[in-house]
Amino acid sequence: MRILVIGATGIVGAAAADLLEADHEVIRASRGSKVTVDLTDRASIRDMFASVGTVDAVVSCTGSVPFKPLAELEEQDFHAAFADKVMGQVNLVTEGLSHVADGGSFTLTTGILAREPIATGAAASLANGALESFVMAASAEMPRGIRINAVSPTVLVEAENYHASFPGFPQVPAADVARAFVRSVQGVETGRVFAL
Amino acid sequence: MRILVIGATGIVGAAAADLLEADHEVIRASRGSKVTVDLTDRASIRDMFASVGTVDAVVSCTGSVPFKPLAELEEQDFHAAFADKVMGQVNLVTEGLSHVADGGSFTLTTGILAREPIATGAAASLANGALESFVMAASAEMPRGIRINAVSPTVLVEAENYHASFPGFPQVPAADVARAFVRSVQGVETGRVFAL
Repeated sequence: MRILVIGATGIVGAAAADLLEADHEVIRASRGSKVTVDLTDRASIRDMFASVGTVDAVVSCTGSVPFKPLAELEEQDFHAAFADKVMGQVNLVTEGLSHVADGGSFTLTTGILAREPIATGAAASLANGALESFVMAASAEMPRGIRINAVSPTVLVEAENYHASFPGFPQVPAADVARAFVRSVQGVETGRVFAL
Repeated sequence: MRILVIGATGIVGAAAADLLEADHEVIRASRGSKVTVDLTDRASIRDMFASVGTVDAVVSCTGSVPFKPLAELEEQDFHAAFADKVMGQVNLVTEGLSHVADGGSFTLTTGILAREPIATGAAASLANGALESFVMAASAEMPRGIRINAVSPTVLVEAENYHASFPGFPQVPAADVARAFVRSVQGVETGRVFAL
């Protein structure tokens, strides 16, 4: 398969790209890479697909959100979370549909905050919940046998800066998260949220 | 209790307001009512609370979203769903916090599309999923014992225009949905999604 991995310079994206590369042709894209993309800019997504061509799978390991106490979250913070984490990945799907082969797949990245709270996490929870329901719903309307799933990890072992914000939460190595992307890309499931 | 019901002219809002009114003082607000509010405009929310004063519970039965096939959903449709259904109710919580009494509550309205797909429902699913995760997360950071829940109904018996879009789905009478608002307002639960 030809697999496009967006956000391939991040911890999860790099682990997913490395694991998928054992069996597939992997094209790595990110802000500032040779294959460059800014998911908040649909023209940038179109340019990326024009340069990459048809792929069998799109893997997205992207999205940032503001973390602030609920009382300090401004309207603009929720809009920022929505524009980056949510619409970045939704745009990737809607723009990418015509560039994914029959029977191909999209795999998005969400996170545990869709279902568990932490202090300062309300905007992140909102964004992750939006994406997980979108994946569930979009899977039922995908054309040409194309599948769509989300990988939704808890805090990464490798993301030490975040450990204090997730006190006592289970931690997962990026290598285990990468296996969930392989399951989504090579498996038969659709509309699933792979939580780990 | 003094209870502010937003969207009190809708099927669910009217049923909730009627049932709550049996035991409480209910203030009904909506676009164009004597107590008027447009939740997409934070100044309008501030004006409403300035005129209404402190309440024990805020009940929101609002939000509209575009329904279109996935392939026809434009970026602006997702933004419209987010601005109206999601940020309308999030703004109500963030602006309303200082006007809700100690131990009071917010109850928002989401819907079955957060967890079940229908054709043309991807933007609605995204919006409802966003709100349900927000409620879960925000409940953990509410001050002064204030609670927050969501009521998440399937298609209403009374909403006949929607029945064809929900083939074979269970239907619920608005009177049953109203009972879930009473449970949220008078009960002790927080961070819950009452699905029915």
